[in-house]
Amino acid sequence: MDALGRHLLLELRECNEAVLDDLKYLEKALVSAAEESGATVLDKSFHHFAPQGVSGVVLIAESHLSLHTWPEHAYAAVDIFTCGTTVKIEVAADALIRQLGSRDPSLLEVKRGVFVRERKLVG
Amino acid sequence: MDALGRHLLLELRECNEAVLDDLKYLEKALVSAAEESGATVLDKSFHHFAPQGVSGVVLIAESHLSLHTWPEHAYAAVDIFTCGTTVKIEVAADALIRQLGSRDPSLLEVKRGVFVRERKLVG
Repeated sequence: MDALGRHLLLELRECNEAVLDDLKYLEKALVSAAEESGATVLDKSFHHFAPQGVSGVVLIAESHLSLHTWPEHAYAAVDIFTCGTTVKIEVAADALIRQLGSRDPSLLEVKRGVFVRERKLVG
Repeated sequence: MDALGRHLLLELRECNEAVLDDLKYLEKALVSAAEESGATVLDKSFHHFAPQGVSGVVLIAESHLSLHTWPEHAYAAVDIFTCGTTVKIEVAADALIRQLGSRDPSLLEVKRGVFVRERKLVG
């Protein structure tokens, strides 16, 4: 089934709480995950919230990665959205699960840009 | 069912093709949609691709909005991710459907950060 984009929604529970409030660590983790997966980083934007929590987005030539953390719940919501065939999206997912120390990760993949009316889904 | 975040995935088909390649228009549309919905814009990052297409992310105090456009398919993938109760997420979705002129929009909502093991889903 052809799709323009692949979008992974990662639910990272039971993370290492200390890193979830560390903007510099998370920025490095998200950028490194993008680079390891073969993506080209174009820009990044991160913000630390009071009293805790970090949001960050990394714009890549192949779409984007984002994360939002709730240290008080040891939880992070991570999205990895790519287009094209060059980015190894699972490499980025594995890297972020590892970097955030999630002991209870789950993942949903959504295909984006599938045009059902214009084509058959099979063949 | 309590969730830390609400995440709308918008599939915008049959958009106005001209605006899908107009970075400045899309930047204004995404920022305006965020502001109209009650979100606080922290940062933004947009990129135009050759020969066509735009990617953009807007970091908000309540999470993020993103878009990726394929003018050749008259298609845009838009995400609106919010936490808390102050942002009227549907207002942002309606605004973007209208601004991009989508005549065949669809929408998926995903609740992010639901901790099933720690609580009952009902009551």
